[in-house]
Amino acid sequence: MTTESRVGSSMVWWGWGTAEGHAPLPDSIRGLLSQALGIDGEPTAPGAPPTPAPSRLAQDARTRLEVIVGPDACSTTDADRVAHTRGKSTPDLLKIRGGDLTDAPDAVLTPASHDDVLAILATCTEENVAVVPFGGGTSVVGGLAPEADGFAATIALDLRRMDALVRIDETSMTATFQPGVRGPAAEALLAPHGLTLGHFPQSFEHASLGGYAATRSSGQASAGYGRFDQMIVALTLATPTGTWTLGRGPHNAAGPDLRHVAIGSEGAFGVVTEVTVAVRAAPAVRRYEGWQVPSFAEGVELLRALAQGGALPTIARLSDEMETGVGLANAKAAGEQTAQGCYVMLGFEGTAEQNDARRAAAAPVLKAAGASSLGDELGDQWLEGRFHGPYLRDALLDVGGLVETVETTTDWAALPGLYEAVRAAAVESLSGAGTPAIVLCHISHVYRTGASLYFTIVCKQADDPLAQWAAAKQAIGDAIVGAGGSITHHHAVGTDHRPWLGAEVGDVGLRVLRAIKDELDPAGILNPGVLVARADD
Amino acid sequence: MTTESRVGSSMVWWGWGTAEGHAPLPDSIRGLLSQALGIDGEPTAPGAPPTPAPSRLAQDARTRLEVIVGPDACSTTDADRVAHTRGKSTPDLLKIRGGDLTDAPDAVLTPASHDDVLAILATCTEENVAVVPFGGGTSVVGGLAPEADGFAATIALDLRRMDALVRIDETSMTATFQPGVRGPAAEALLAPHGLTLGHFPQSFEHASLGGYAATRSSGQASAGYGRFDQMIVALTLATPTGTWTLGRGPHNAAGPDLRHVAIGSEGAFGVVTEVTVAVRAAPAVRRYEGWQVPSFAEGVELLRALAQGGALPTIARLSDEMETGVGLANAKAAGEQTAQGCYVMLGFEGTAEQNDARRAAAAPVLKAAGASSLGDELGDQWLEGRFHGPYLRDALLDVGGLVETVETTTDWAALPGLYEAVRAAAVESLSGAGTPAIVLCHISHVYRTGASLYFTIVCKQADDPLAQWAAAKQAIGDAIVGAGGSITHHHAVGTDHRPWLGAEVGDVGLRVLRAIKDELDPAGILNPGVLVARADD
Repeated sequence: MTTESRVGSSMVWWGWGTAEGHAPLPDSIRGLLSQALGIDGEPTAPGAPPTPAPSRLAQDARTRLEVIVGPDACSTTDADRVAHTRGKSTPDLLKIRGGDLTDAPDAVLTPASHDDVLAILATCTEENVAVVPFGGGTSVVGGLAPEADGFAATIALDLRRMDALVRIDETSMTATFQPGVRGPAAEALLAPHGLTLGHFPQSFEHASLGGYAATRSSGQASAGYGRFDQMIVALTLATPTGTWTLGRGPHNAAGPDLRHVAIGSEGAFGVVTEVTVAVRAAPAVRRYEGWQVPSFAEGVELLRALAQGGALPTIARLSDEMETGVGLANAKAAGEQTAQGCYVMLGFEGTAEQNDARRAAAAPVLKAAGASSLGDELGDQWLEGRFHGPYLRDALLDVGGLVETVETTTDWAALPGLYEAVRAAAVESLSGAGTPAIVLCHISHVYRTGASLYFTIVCKQADDPLAQWAAAKQAIGDAIVGAGGSITHHHAVGTDHRPWLGAEVGDVGLRVLRAIKDELDPAGILNPGVLVARADD
Repeated sequence: MTTESRVGSSMVWWGWGTAEGHAPLPDSIRGLLSQALGIDGEPTAPGAPPTPAPSRLAQDARTRLEVIVGPDACSTTDADRVAHTRGKSTPDLLKIRGGDLTDAPDAVLTPASHDDVLAILATCTEENVAVVPFGGGTSVVGGLAPEADGFAATIALDLRRMDALVRIDETSMTATFQPGVRGPAAEALLAPHGLTLGHFPQSFEHASLGGYAATRSSGQASAGYGRFDQMIVALTLATPTGTWTLGRGPHNAAGPDLRHVAIGSEGAFGVVTEVTVAVRAAPAVRRYEGWQVPSFAEGVELLRALAQGGALPTIARLSDEMETGVGLANAKAAGEQTAQGCYVMLGFEGTAEQNDARRAAAAPVLKAAGASSLGDELGDQWLEGRFHGPYLRDALLDVGGLVETVETTTDWAALPGLYEAVRAAAVESLSGAGTPAIVLCHISHVYRTGASLYFTIVCKQADDPLAQWAAAKQAIGDAIVGAGGSITHHHAVGTDHRPWLGAEVGDVGLRVLRAIKDELDPAGILNPGVLVARADD
């Protein structure tokens, strides 16, 4: 194996984030896992990475691509190919930990500009090479695991070199970024101007702005700063058939808002090469507070009242009884009992005056809901551990656990039914197969007409954990669409959720997506099988 | 002429709204028009409506359509055909006042259900009959003036019988309407539940909810209640190739948000047959206040500061010096001098406490901008006259004036340049042709990153007013896209704005629109030439 990396990677090949970010599970949680679920393996340290099959990228094609990006920006080292194999879904991790590198790209390209990307797409169209746009590599839905059989080769198009802040317009309060800028880098680039983007998904430390746009991302502070699709005022894509620039004015009526065709297109229509987003004054004060409500149902009513009364904080979260009980409302404190009932976290960001005014507006709603304060400390702990969840998954996999997160959304009226349906499907599917599961849930995105539900499901790995996962995923996906939920609130479609996309947008919607794909990417080289089924499916 | 109407019409054939809504221009404004612009015709009363050519709808096709909707819902009377000829753009009115009925539909159908619409579209596809979806008939951009040559016939599909409130969900705070519900009817249906939609475009009294969705409408209270596209949580379309239902959850990440392909599709992709919108508690208190700022530039900075500081009222408007000077900041008081400098109107809607809090938040911003209060009276006058503007246009046409409104949007940084560019283009184009023009402007939609500009342009009609209009429209459209503006903030594309849609969404965007159109409406029967150029263009 050619071990040296020429491209670099931000995450370990066997899991989430950096090696330093990982720690063994605390004894408290291991005890709980053993007792409740029979998960009692000893932690296994990751071995050497597996070795991919030789690159299939033909010399002619490689030469053409090297002319575009330069030889240093076209790597076929094993280390780079392994680091760009799939994303970070649970099946992705099970596969790579099991040595399966069948989806390894044949090369990793790191373009430096929009024109580079445009030329690469044109060349790959001619050379029948599949292209997987690669931002932070954080997809948890198979968005980086395309169905690329039939192509001469597959390349990963890693956008990390396109990491510039292009311009700031402090009059219009917008900032224009290249797509490879990671979450922390975006905030660091804005901070000297006293500005923030305010987009903090759990993948924040690794995901890129291009990826946020491509997956219609939503951050933990969406109540205050909006979803990423609401932040975008303009964007440019490189497609196999040309450059596409969209966004005149904050909002207009010039036909369908085609920005929303580009946003969420998951690398299947084009590659986001520039994005202009609304920015805000960095908050002078951040105040996060823990609250306790007697039950999840009462917590739901509290969040609904806050949203519909116009008293929503910047961040509003509610953990159900189970998530509160096992302490996973706060990843840093996992396994510690933190509260009775259900834990609510409210975060206020702004000037001290703004925060005071919004806390005052929320106070009567909290009182009416019977919420009691748990103080600032739990809020601060949540803030500290807010990006830590995915590390826990690795630690659970290390001891023979299976863990998956599932998220959905619906309107308030359907929310209780959806909550019960998903829990029942998860428990029945996994327990019925001999692996009892626990299901934790929280609400983390709240709107006037509805909210998201985010489930964490944990059980012991069966002999064939991929089959175990697939059966449970099928049952849960069916339960979601049957109960009126969306198949994904913020994780995107990828390949994992494609079976339910027809239920989501109808046969007409699938035909519209296919028609757009065929128009922009007639050879179907872009992320084949992601979002849009392959033409021969 | 068969004078009786079987369908009914909500507006006079020769102009806007009802006959009773019209009044001659006050002497003050006639003096101003005569003195400044040489407009000095005597008001002409509308004569009898012109007579259209015989209906081209073949008996076979007619019989098939009557089987679907019933014979009473398929009218070929002259009165109904005239009432459904084009919309209410200035060229539309010039043409019909001049007796030009070349675009008259051959029949007017009034379907009763989604299934009716679906069957009509399938039949018209087979019979090569063009279909013009008709809501309130208020388009001012040629959205009801398709390019239908080559079709066997054209029908207007008037959705007025589909006027039900389907359901209210008071938990999720949503309401589901059929598309033919007019603005006032929607509010009347919601009022017994203590709810409001809060969507008040100038066309409110006549336009329909289906039309709001199809044109990506934005109302005068968009700052408080959002644009219509932001209110829509779900919608159903009947397309020539099937039913399309969209909208799971308030927001999701299931690929591109295809709701935004349906919204703004202007009847070219399908017919909106049901729309679910977010509703709000009807405000307990409405308070509208007039303010005065020294200049338009300072007013712009005031609105920007309010928007970016999170202190935007429900309604925020700013008239420039000219609009303020001639009193058109307030249509009911047109011709009366109302204020020096520039007039600002701020409207607060909510509970008394909410309004007080928001007025308190706005107060320091107003003070810093040097704004002085003009009290509530002017605000109340504005409220009274808020839907009256289009009537003034008819009165101006009656005395030989030409009047057009043009609206656009851009970010704050580009706004001053766009303002100057449009004014210069309008004045140069019209004055250069021997008809000096005055140009009034206001801002009526304010966002964090930018705002709309709405221009009213008045001059004397030339010998060929349609050619005069076309030359000025060309110059102004070019100026708008040259200065970075959108070709339309809330009037939509129709046929009038199609020449600039390529500048707006790029060649790639035009190809995407064409691909969607071809997929959903392969025979091209729906509103041919509206939004999407005909395939043979």
